[in-house]
Order: sequence, then C-alpha cells, then structure tokens
Amino acid sequence: MEFSVDKGIEVLEATPLTLHALLQNLSDEWIQDPKSKLENTGWEPFDVVGHLIHGDQTDWIPRARIIIEQGENRTFVPFDRFAQFEISKGKSLGDLLSEFQHLRSESVATLRDWSLTEEHLDLEGVHPELGVVTLRQLLATWVVHDLNHIRQIATSMATKYGGQVGPWKEYLSVLKSSKE
Amino acid sequence: MEFSVDKGIEVLEATPLTLHALLQNLSDEWIQDPKSKLENTGWEPFDVVGHLIHGDQTDWIPRARIIIEQGENRTFVPFDRFAQFEISKGKSLGDLLSEFQHLRSESVATLRDWSLTEEHLDLEGVHPELGVVTLRQLLATWVVHDLNHIRQIATSMATKYGGQVGPWKEYLSVLKSSKE
Repeated sequence: MEFSVDKGIEVLEATPLTLHALLQNLSDEWIQDPKSKLENTGWEPFDVVGHLIHGDQTDWIPRARIIIEQGENRTFVPFDRFAQFEISKGKSLGDLLSEFQHLRSESVATLRDWSLTEEHLDLEGVHPELGVVTLRQLLATWVVHDLNHIRQIATSMATKYGGQVGPWKEYLSVLKSSKE
Repeated sequence: MEFSVDKGIEVLEATPLTLHALLQNLSDEWIQDPKSKLENTGWEPFDVVGHLIHGDQTDWIPRARIIIEQGENRTFVPFDRFAQFEISKGKSLGDLLSEFQHLRSESVATLRDWSLTEEHLDLEGVHPELGVVTLRQLLATWVVHDLNHIRQIATSMATKYGGQVGPWKEYLSVLKSSKE
C-alpha cells in the first residue's frame, strides 16, 4: 500500500477513539495492575496511553515541522521512550484518554493545514540514530507506531489471562509472543 | 490475573465498540484490499469481523451451554475457522460491525443471565481436538480470542505500511511478526 496523507489520517484519527472504546470501562487489573509492575511484565495499557501522549507532544508534529522548515539543523531531538512513567503520575486513565484525544485532534488539524504535496513528502530530516529519513517515512511511521501500540495493549491484556485458557493456549498466537 | 465472569465481560463488551472505532472510517485499502487477497497476505480486517460473528453464532455461547447442561454428549461441534469467507459475501463492513455488535450484546446478556458460580466454572466439556476443558477455560479463551483478533487487525494494517517506514522498521516490532 502506498502512503497517502489522507489515508494515514484515517488511522491517526481512529486511534484515540479505539483506545477509548477498548479501555474506558475496564477494571484496574486490566489497565494498570500494581502486581504487573512488580513483576516487570512490560508496559501496562495505562503506560501505553501516556507514551502516545508524549509522542504527540514531542515527536511526530515537531519532527515533521523540522523537516518542512528545512532549516540549517534538521536533526531531530531524541525521543524519550520512558517519559510516560513521569508524566502519567497522579492521572487517571480517563484523564490520559481525554488528553490524548485532544492532542491528537490538534496534531491532525496541523497536518491537514500543511496541505502536503508529494514534494513535501520527499523532504528529508536527520534522525539522531537512524540517519536521513523523509517526511513520508516519518508520517508512515507515526501510523504504524499507533497500530504497534494498539497491538501491544491487546497483547498485554491477553497475557494477563494466559494462565486461564488451559489447552487452548496452543491456538492463541497472542500468547506465544514475547514481551513487546 | 484470575478469571472472573465480570472482568471477562468488560472485555467482551468492549470488543465490538473497539472494532467500530478502529475500522468504521477507513478506506477499503485498510480493511479489504483486493490486492492483499491475491497476494495471500493473511486475513484482512474485514475477514476478522466475519470470523468474530461466526464465533458468537456457533462457538462460545453454544459450547458454554453444552457444558452447563451436562448432558450425555458434552463434545463440542468443531468450529469452522474459515466460515467467514462465505458468510461475509456481499456484506459491507458496516453491516458486519452492526451484526457483531448485536450478536455480542445477546451473548453477554445470556452470559449474565446464567449468574455463573465458581462451581459452574469448574464444569467440564470435551473439545473435539483438545480434550477435556472447563467452562472457566472456555470463557477465558473467548476473551483472549477477542484480543488476539484485535491484535491481528492492528498487525494486518501495520503490515500494509511496512514498506513505507524506511529505517524506522527496526524499531517497530509489529513489522517483525509473521503472518497471524
């Protein structure tokens, strides 16, 4: 499938709604179990929402802006993949879901306002670790990153019931994946 | 995490809402791309919704009923994992999402009406391939099966953009998974 801004936006807009639908009515055991934290079993759904918030605040649009402006220094600021543990403190999941929905609406509005052409999408910036990347690759990565974390939430939740399914375990590929 | 009917229902009720939020506004390329069919790249999101419909129609509640009734023959009817290719023909994604939402509401209402006790959950049935299973395992599997397919949809969609992300590929675990 070729990248297009419009089709990318379809997914970017769906993500906060999807997380809201999936998580809003769940008990704490599903979304943020203190026991899981202790056992270091990977990110809880609560952590993932904070991570997505941090991405919309500091990563996707700011990096796209660096590329579009084509200034002297086009190297992105490194992204802190663990900032959510600090910024989510004291917030409820409902707080985070609302904040993410709000930020994402702003991000998408900015993206639409830019009215990007194919020439824009070919412009380049520099990732601090990966080197030269195009705006097209950045925006496609944003979409895949959303889907990656929806997948991570589904995996995290399924894993919590991994000990309850008995012999069905062998049919459920989600229980065979390692920590993500 | 221990299994409980109430916490299982939280996820079972969230699934149709999640699929609706994720898929309702997407272009055909995301949900049912004729090219993907030709290339045999696994199930499309459209196919997954049909599969979940077939599960609510013929698998979860019917099997739970066989266990609860404890009749002479407690062996489940084998589940057709490919029935959706026939039953989804000629339907739109919107049709399937509505049908699934409706069926799932009925399934959950039935489950609630049973007011299952721990003793009920210990009752056994016979899976045609896996042998003896408990009602608890069946219901936990239903929940994990939902999450497995939410994960599969996210994977299927992410894979469509796998060729667009450039060097970011190595950071995105969803692009490293094999067909599911």
